Amino acid sequence: MPFARALMFSSASVKFREGNISLVQGASRGIGLEFVTQLLEKSKGNVVATCRKPNEAAGLLDLKNKFAERLDIHRLDLTVDSTIEEVAKSVKDKYGYLNLLINASGILSMPDILRPETTLSKVNREALLIAYEVNAVGPLLVTKHMWPLLKAGGGTGTERDFAMVASISARVGSIGDNHLGGWHSYRSSKAALNQLMKTVSVEFARKKDPIVCILLHPGTVDTDLSKPFQKNVPKDKLFTKEVSVRKLLSIINSAKSSDNGKFFAWDGQEIPW
Amino acid sequence: MPFARALMFSSASVKFREGNISLVQGASRGIGLEFVTQLLEKSKGNVVATCRKPNEAAGLLDLKNKFAERLDIHRLDLTVDSTIEEVAKSVKDKYGYLNLLINASGILSMPDILRPETTLSKVNREALLIAYEVNAVGPLLVTKHMWPLLKAGGGTGTERDFAMVASISARVGSIGDNHLGGWHSYRSSKAALNQLMKTVSVEFARKKDPIVCILLHPGTVDTDLSKPFQKNVPKDKLFTKEVSVRKLLSIINSAKSSDNGKFFAWDGQEIPW
Ligand SMILES: NC(=O)c1ccc[n+]([C@@H]2O[C@H](COP(=O)([O-])OP(=O)(O)OC[C@H]3O[C@@H](n4cnc5c(N)ncnc54)[C@H](OP(=O)(O)O)[C@@H]3O)[C@@H](O)[C@H]2O)c1
Ligand SMILES: NC(=O)c1ccc[n+]([C@@H]2O[C@H](COP(=O)([O-])OP(=O)(O)OC[C@H]3O[C@@H](n4cnc5c(N)ncnc54)[C@H](OP(=O)(O)O)[C@@H]3O)[C@@H](O)[C@H]2O)c1
Repeated sequence: MPFARALMFSSASVKFREGNISLVQGASRGIGLEFVTQLLEKSKGNVVATCRKPNEAAGLLDLKNKFAERLDIHRLDLTVDSTIEEVAKSVKDKYGYLNLLINASGILSMPDILRPETTLSKVNREALLIAYEVNAVGPLLVTKHMWPLLKAGGGTGTERDFAMVASISARVGSIGDNHLGGWHSYRSSKAALNQLMKTVSVEFARKKDPIVCILLHPGTVDTDLSKPFQKNVPKDKLFTKEVSVRKLLSIINSAKSSDNGKFFAWDGQEIPW
Repeated sequence: MPFARALMFSSASVKFREGNISLVQGASRGIGLEFVTQLLEKSKGNVVATCRKPNEAAGLLDLKNKFAERLDIHRLDLTVDSTIEEVAKSVKDKYGYLNLLINASGILSMPDILRPETTLSKVNREALLIAYEVNAVGPLLVTKHMWPLLKAGGGTGTERDFAMVASISARVGSIGDNHLGGWHSYRSSKAALNQLMKTVSVEFARKKDPIVCILLHPGTVDTDLSKPFQKNVPKDKLFTKEVSVRKLLSIINSAKSSDNGKFFAWDGQEIPW
């Protein structure tokens, strides 16, 4: 690990201990891969990383070489129920519980299918539906299937008494903060994700399940997803994955049970719905 | 028209004049049918009513007998693009413009497919997707195709200088107001509808199009949709369609351009996102 990277982490405070099990969903690239990296480098637990094509996930395979037994890689495609169920079964069989679920996947564009809309006249059914399925339905179904494991895990191997679900949303999913318009499919899917996770958080609280569920905006982060839109972003507003994930992990790490159901930006500020 | 009904309308103030063209989408039953009724009874313009099965829409056929030329009935199924495009073409050919679009359709349950979820463990992909397609995608696509007609119409035949899009959302679509949880598919689809219509309203404003776009919560209204859930509703909180639509029409009628992009309950109070 290069020195600069080590230094960058010095203020981070990921305090998961041995026995802690985290699952990062959407871990092949970008922010998800960086979550896996930092969880392995800075804490002691095990990490389950899921992605659509494990054999092609070069970043994960590198980490597997380095961290061996501490990292499991599983196939999970958000559009295929059975892959979600199989991951839940694998985690159950191997560990029996989970302490942290990070839904890091997301799509903004998809070749030939979904292009972030610049005007109402460009919206179409297929794009709206696929964005919803991947960005909102998928993370909800993953949460559904990991729920019993999170309930079983609670705070085991952490310094607190609850497990966490952190789903990566986006500030543009905020309805109240929507002053620019456009990107109908993406905005709508993230507003829906916010509503679904809020709904889940209410049930967790009502049932006194030891699980806290939050939504996170990572800032504008230099990944494949943002690449086509970076030219209008001031340099100091474009985060590296390292910086963004460090900030998000610090929010996850310092979350309290009263944060259940809230939507935070990378700097800890709450974002309006 | 029975006396009680006439009285009930006495305070209503639907001021559309001759030449005004309204389109009510989702007009076969419930709130949508009542919008068509009140628009025909209380104002002078023409009404285009759309539904999935015109031949079986008894309420609309009765109105057709009574109001003849003032009412057009067209087939529109929100899940079939071509039916939306054909209605836009018919309206264009016959009138050339629109002054009011009411998206009144909506689903909360669907036999064998969508049952309002009481817990996360009951959510499933198919139910989430169909609710989104009907409650969010459909009204957006209708708005897309009627946009040029609304722009052409603006305030013609009304007492103001803009056309309107009023989409029936629901208070349970509010994320900020979600304290009970459950109903994942419906809540999520209505939050998404809110985000989509807010997004549209931003574009209308930016382009200075003479169109104001609002979201409405009708209250809990005695229709097929709410029937299975009425037993827990206090009597004075369950509105008749007549009362709800009278209140909603009075909001539509008194809307100002500064209301563009807002979400109102039946009593005119804004609802948080
Ligand atoms: N980057 C930003 O500026 C920014 C800003 C706000 C919010 N976000 C959010 O942050 C999250 C991560 O984005 P990112 O920037 O890291 O994007 P990214 O680099 O494009 O990575 C997206 C990830 O989602 C996965 N994914 C896509 N479709 C999937 C499916 N059907 N099943 C399973 N996984 C799927 C991708 O896997 P494959 O490799 O298999 O495609 C990839 O791992 C997303 O939720 C995004 O909306 C990002
Ligand atoms: N009733 C309440 O308490 C309440 C409360 C809050 C919000 N709302 C909202 O108010 C609106 C009207 O609801 P309602 O109570 O009048 O319900 P309703 O009596 O069940 O009527 C629903 C309408 O939506 C139409 N529809 C369903 N699927 C459609 C599709 N694929 N394509 C075109 N039209 C379709 C139905 O047509 P078919 O006859 O062909 O099925 C019917 O006309 C909905 O948006 C609902 O979410 C109602």
